[in-house]
Amino acid sequence: MANITKKVSWSSRTDESGTPGEGTPLLNGSERASHSRQLSEEDSLFQIGRLSTVDLEEEITSDEDSQRGRLKEIPHNEKLLSLKYESLDYDNIENQLFLEEERRMSYMGFRCLEISRWVVCGLIGFLTGLIACFIDIAVEELAGIKYQVVKENIEKFTEVGGLSISLLLWAVLNSAIVMMGAIIVAFFEPIAAGSGIPQIKCYLNGIKIPRVVRLKTLVVKVCGVICSVVGGLAVGKEGPMIHSGAVVAAGVSQGRSTSLKRDFKIFEYFRRDTEKRDFVSAGAAAGVSAAFGAPVGGVLFSLEEGASFWNQMLTWRIFFASMISTFTLNFFLSVYHKNPGDLSNPGLINFGRFQSDSVAYNLYEIPLFIAMGAIGGLLGALFNILNYWLTIFRIRYVHRPCLQVMEAMLVAAVTATVSFTMIYFSNDCQPLGPEHSEEYPLQLFCADGEYNSMATAFFNTPERSVRSLFHNQPGSYNPLTLGLFTLTYFFLACWTYGLAVSAGVFIPSLLIGAAWGRLCGILLASIPSNGSIWADPGKYALIGAAAQLGGIVRMTLSLTVIMVEATGNVTYGLPIMLVLMTAKIVGDYFVEGLYDIHIKLQSVPFLHWDAPATSHWLTAREVMSSQVTCLNRIEKVGTIVDTLSNTSTNHNGFPVVVQVSGSDEPAKLCGLILRSQLIVLLKHKVFVELARSRLTHRKLQLKDFRDAYPRFPPIQSIHVSQDERECMMDLTEFMNATPYTVPQETSLPRVFKLFRALGLRHLVVVDDVNRVVGLVTRKDLARYHLGKHGLEELQLAQT
Amino acid sequence: MANITKKVSWSSRTDESGTPGEGTPLLNGSERASHSRQLSEEDSLFQIGRLSTVDLEEEITSDEDSQRGRLKEIPHNEKLLSLKYESLDYDNIENQLFLEEERRMSYMGFRCLEISRWVVCGLIGFLTGLIACFIDIAVEELAGIKYQVVKENIEKFTEVGGLSISLLLWAVLNSAIVMMGAIIVAFFEPIAAGSGIPQIKCYLNGIKIPRVVRLKTLVVKVCGVICSVVGGLAVGKEGPMIHSGAVVAAGVSQGRSTSLKRDFKIFEYFRRDTEKRDFVSAGAAAGVSAAFGAPVGGVLFSLEEGASFWNQMLTWRIFFASMISTFTLNFFLSVYHKNPGDLSNPGLINFGRFQSDSVAYNLYEIPLFIAMGAIGGLLGALFNILNYWLTIFRIRYVHRPCLQVMEAMLVAAVTATVSFTMIYFSNDCQPLGPEHSEEYPLQLFCADGEYNSMATAFFNTPERSVRSLFHNQPGSYNPLTLGLFTLTYFFLACWTYGLAVSAGVFIPSLLIGAAWGRLCGILLASIPSNGSIWADPGKYALIGAAAQLGGIVRMTLSLTVIMVEATGNVTYGLPIMLVLMTAKIVGDYFVEGLYDIHIKLQSVPFLHWDAPATSHWLTAREVMSSQVTCLNRIEKVGTIVDTLSNTSTNHNGFPVVVQVSGSDEPAKLCGLILRSQLIVLLKHKVFVELARSRLTHRKLQLKDFRDAYPRFPPIQSIHVSQDERECMMDLTEFMNATPYTVPQETSLPRVFKLFRALGLRHLVVVDDVNRVVGLVTRKDLARYHLGKHGLEELQLAQT
Repeated sequence: MANITKKVSWSSRTDESGTPGEGTPLLNGSERASHSRQLSEEDSLFQIGRLSTVDLEEEITSDEDSQRGRLKEIPHNEKLLSLKYESLDYDNIENQLFLEEERRMSYMGFRCLEISRWVVCGLIGFLTGLIACFIDIAVEELAGIKYQVVKENIEKFTEVGGLSISLLLWAVLNSAIVMMGAIIVAFFEPIAAGSGIPQIKCYLNGIKIPRVVRLKTLVVKVCGVICSVVGGLAVGKEGPMIHSGAVVAAGVSQGRSTSLKRDFKIFEYFRRDTEKRDFVSAGAAAGVSAAFGAPVGGVLFSLEEGASFWNQMLTWRIFFASMISTFTLNFFLSVYHKNPGDLSNPGLINFGRFQSDSVAYNLYEIPLFIAMGAIGGLLGALFNILNYWLTIFRIRYVHRPCLQVMEAMLVAAVTATVSFTMIYFSNDCQPLGPEHSEEYPLQLFCADGEYNSMATAFFNTPERSVRSLFHNQPGSYNPLTLGLFTLTYFFLACWTYGLAVSAGVFIPSLLIGAAWGRLCGILLASIPSNGSIWADPGKYALIGAAAQLGGIVRMTLSLTVIMVEATGNVTYGLPIMLVLMTAKIVGDYFVEGLYDIHIKLQSVPFLHWDAPATSHWLTAREVMSSQVTCLNRIEKVGTIVDTLSNTSTNHNGFPVVVQVSGSDEPAKLCGLILRSQLIVLLKHKVFVELARSRLTHRKLQLKDFRDAYPRFPPIQSIHVSQDERECMMDLTEFMNATPYTVPQETSLPRVFKLFRALGLRHLVVVDDVNRVVGLVTRKDLARYHLGKHGLEELQLAQT
Repeated sequence: MANITKKVSWSSRTDESGTPGEGTPLLNGSERASHSRQLSEEDSLFQIGRLSTVDLEEEITSDEDSQRGRLKEIPHNEKLLSLKYESLDYDNIENQLFLEEERRMSYMGFRCLEISRWVVCGLIGFLTGLIACFIDIAVEELAGIKYQVVKENIEKFTEVGGLSISLLLWAVLNSAIVMMGAIIVAFFEPIAAGSGIPQIKCYLNGIKIPRVVRLKTLVVKVCGVICSVVGGLAVGKEGPMIHSGAVVAAGVSQGRSTSLKRDFKIFEYFRRDTEKRDFVSAGAAAGVSAAFGAPVGGVLFSLEEGASFWNQMLTWRIFFASMISTFTLNFFLSVYHKNPGDLSNPGLINFGRFQSDSVAYNLYEIPLFIAMGAIGGLLGALFNILNYWLTIFRIRYVHRPCLQVMEAMLVAAVTATVSFTMIYFSNDCQPLGPEHSEEYPLQLFCADGEYNSMATAFFNTPERSVRSLFHNQPGSYNPLTLGLFTLTYFFLACWTYGLAVSAGVFIPSLLIGAAWGRLCGILLASIPSNGSIWADPGKYALIGAAAQLGGIVRMTLSLTVIMVEATGNVTYGLPIMLVLMTAKIVGDYFVEGLYDIHIKLQSVPFLHWDAPATSHWLTAREVMSSQVTCLNRIEKVGTIVDTLSNTSTNHNGFPVVVQVSGSDEPAKLCGLILRSQLIVLLKHKVFVELARSRLTHRKLQLKDFRDAYPRFPPIQSIHVSQDERECMMDLTEFMNATPYTVPQETSLPRVFKLFRALGLRHLVVVDDVNRVVGLVTRKDLARYHLGKHGLEELQLAQT
């Protein structure tokens, strides 16, 4: 792409002349042929329904009915970027109001703020821990009842024959429970589907996903995940914890609940994107921490996904929230398990302690581990590709809520049937240990004092199955059992992810990996050489679990730390890291990680860490949108209303320009104002009537903006009379007077770095005399990505 | 401070006219009364010698002799900022050469670069691990010989009387060994003194500390630390590992050694501050990882101290280096200990494994832990204040190398004497355990089969003493022993830190804390109520160690993780965190952390994470230096030479301006060029002779700049003839054409955030038509800090 030099025609006008209706000053860049933002023919081939995981609907119309059943034109092509997604603003809007407030604040004021941040983080940790505790206990109790009922039934019918009735009972029970979970998700809050990790990734990346951090979402998520796990689906309850923690954080930090219509009048200072994001990071970390008993892993997860600018105090607070969350969960669980004060089970799942002496590894095992990592990468890529096709299919054909519920029920029934069949035809009988390590041992056709080994894997919550695979004695499983289990569970898990139920993919991945990992261990142990060294298959189960999980989700640093913390053994750090790295490299060769696939399928403008490597030949000039609508510092209300109402552009940030009255100099950039700010100004009628030259409004406070945050009303809901349209509005006090700017020649990586490091939403491009020539937003940067054939450019779609 | 509006007088000149000697265009801001950069009378009262830890000398004159013995005027007032320190440039200089190179590079090229980054990190980890291994083995062997000799001597003289000869032997041995260490440090490389952590903190913060990452420093550091530890000083070998790792990283990543005059012609791409910094982060992390067996802690340490913009791939590489380092150390140590493959001792120090079942804590112990944290904070503050006074004293009176060596010898002798006295007068005899857990049990006056308990603490390497305090059976120490030990060791350690020897403060701090912590545990156990719950004093030793260390160094997140990893038990995370937090809060009330004190005493312009909270009323206008020397895009060589030679300003970055020929418009900013770049240009005579209008030089490559990096010659060493002075130099290709700019009204926190997040060195302040009005550098931002009485401004000193 050559450097296209553009002639910029600046429709100069002086506002003070008061000629109305001339339209807003526009920078008409020459038509950019290469950047056509139209949907191409090809794209429109996609028949598009409603997305379940991330609802794309703009919240302009607040009627809930519009959510249901109506088909919408939504692209699900990963080569598109949707323009519907808005950015969050992680850069403080430093307007006069804000600066005045900051200047008024004493040192003690800042100290108090700091203390309340800590309090909020403590609360976030505590509540997240409580929620984790609630989920855990609910699942344990309900699953206990279910398995007990089915077990008794199976035992009854094993003797008298007619096990098909047991199968029916199991399948119906599962379907019924899953149905409940699917109904609340599909009909009440579709955003609560899935693990929630892609959504939280997007949120922390700076993308506004509607309704993702609402109370209703939390309730649906928690109930949904309980139903899914109890319903016996191939899912985990860990992923949803991260989403739950984030919702808790977003709620607690704002000191009010819009859903409950309660405003506690506290933490008002935190009512902006910058502060809220920080707390949501803490919430996500607390969620990870509760899920895996991995506070450090939680911090790193938040940083890996969310942080742009690392801040020591923030990280320290995030760590605090994580610690409190683990501690709370641990404490209440210890009380529940009638063992108060035993704080050694720090998470929803823990892998049990791997003692380094019992399962030490040797240097020559490392190549084996790496090979297992490669297998994990391959299997993970297969999983992701299958799930990708399935998701496309779902988007096209399974978009009605009732269909979604039926699919979920079908999966539940099939899962039960497959499990039952596997158990039924398995003849892997193992002697019952003296300590009755199995929770629900199924005797079935085994001799007395023995249990069916396949049933420990299938007839159990997945968390327990994982632990059995890690820690059961060598010889507890025979290879055929493990092979069959891997195969069936792989396809079940793949089918399950993306259903309209609230559920995570961590545990199924671990389970698949642990199964084939243990299988590898058993096969290695059968090598005649000197068997003792390969003795422990649990070690290989752990490596396999890491490989499979890494192959599917492609997380790196945080996952290593999570695994290390969950095993409680730092010596496994290096092998786990090597395995995750191999799995990522191998997997990335074929397809992206599962979360990234789902993010791309939603056409979310996700910003990665760096600009694509080979993008140095692009400059701000090529990247920017040159259709910038500028406002004058003192602007006519009518113009503003028209600008905001213009649905064809739907801009959210407007550079403010100023022109010396009577001079013919071009207008200079003097600030930046957001749609949300203008809306508040219009709502409060902050107009200056020119004729009488007096203020018709009370002085606007920051509080007014905070009260409106984050659900600013749409422009359509604000009535502006014809008289008022003739008034003027003085933006001086409200605009950000010092927006970041770059010259046109700045290279894309440089623009990207500035944008990403500071969490910007709009970056103004100026020429050498400070005139606005363009605006860089998230979509302009996210468009460029490195494909198989070098730098590619994504299409932008209005839908 | 009111907004001072300045009239800027721009001495406009057009370069093309060729009138020489008019002087550089200067922006003469009005005299800033409030920001006088003169040394006040008060400051000059300080009698100033030569600093041992951080040598302030500018490396303009390369003769090594100037280092020695000569008194210099160096401030050591913490209310000053030295202008002598230069910044590193963590922002890529995106000039045309750079962009052309990047554009030429294919995607495969970037992949290869990425792979070589990984290779370098692996090498860094490996070499750091090897160095740690070497230090450990050397210390173990040498200390073993020393203690054996002394032990035999003591045993001989215990029977026949005349133990004063043993004392003499011990003292002389210690002094002799320490003398060697002190001589190489004081005479050959003073920067190798101390732990090196403050220096690495500064480096990662972006400050150029001369000679801190040289090979010679590494050699002296390694030999020095072996001598200090073997010499029985109250020091640890862990801090120096961090510095060693950093030096290894800086060396390996550059693919050459200037000291050895070898250039391997590899990794040339990494020869700039940005890349080098990343590797130094990895090296520091690898050092921490090797020292404490804490790879995650290492990563967090690097991030806490160094990161501004978090980058996922970078962090992942840092983690890799850490892992390799731990693994290497572990592996070679296991071979050394004749137990190859046992990878369970991952660090120079490890605290032994705390089994959660044996030393679980209860909820009601948490207030106790917090109280201990407060004690740690108090004792830490006391330690720091004493050391602060001592450092001031040293700066004034102990600045000659020979004096420094003598002081070190004195401390060594006193340490031996005190230890001997304590052991001699102690009557705390303990029965020898069956497993002979003590390495060098001293019987002295105890009965047969018993050993002197005080000797386990004093007659041992500090690492072993710490482990004994953590893990020895309850009853191994009596309270008086512990009390006396705490008291004497506290003062010894305080006296030792800051000596001209290479040594760390981590282990002594842990040892002091473990001693009084264990004392607390014993006292608590003596409370009659129900003794069983307080049974294990080792737990309190751990908490005490954390409290004391936290109270002295005030690290937070990374220290928590290091402690957790070193204990291998995640359940201790919350108490350790609470303790460290309390210690920090309490300690900060009195005085800063030890490292920060030493950094401040060197008047280093250290940038913290955020701008001071109450600084919103300051804007770029007040903060910037308005004495900006600008260059024209096509500038006369003579002007450039004069500008660079001007010792009164000694600027390092020059905004480049352009003026339309013949127009009266003011000159506009068009780029930024560094002193180092100009030097290279002058050296290669990149001149345009106007008369003949032809190029007299070959085309300059990026390689020329890289070859000169990082030791650019001083301007004085470059000869420019009178004819050449009349030539012109075209800067277009070499300047950074898109420097970051801010308007004058930008608030200080905003400027700070931009500066810190992007790791800038110069930030140009422009007016609304893009004219240069000022330049913000590190010193301008570091000047403002939050003191006891609100915002304070530090003085800038030329020296």
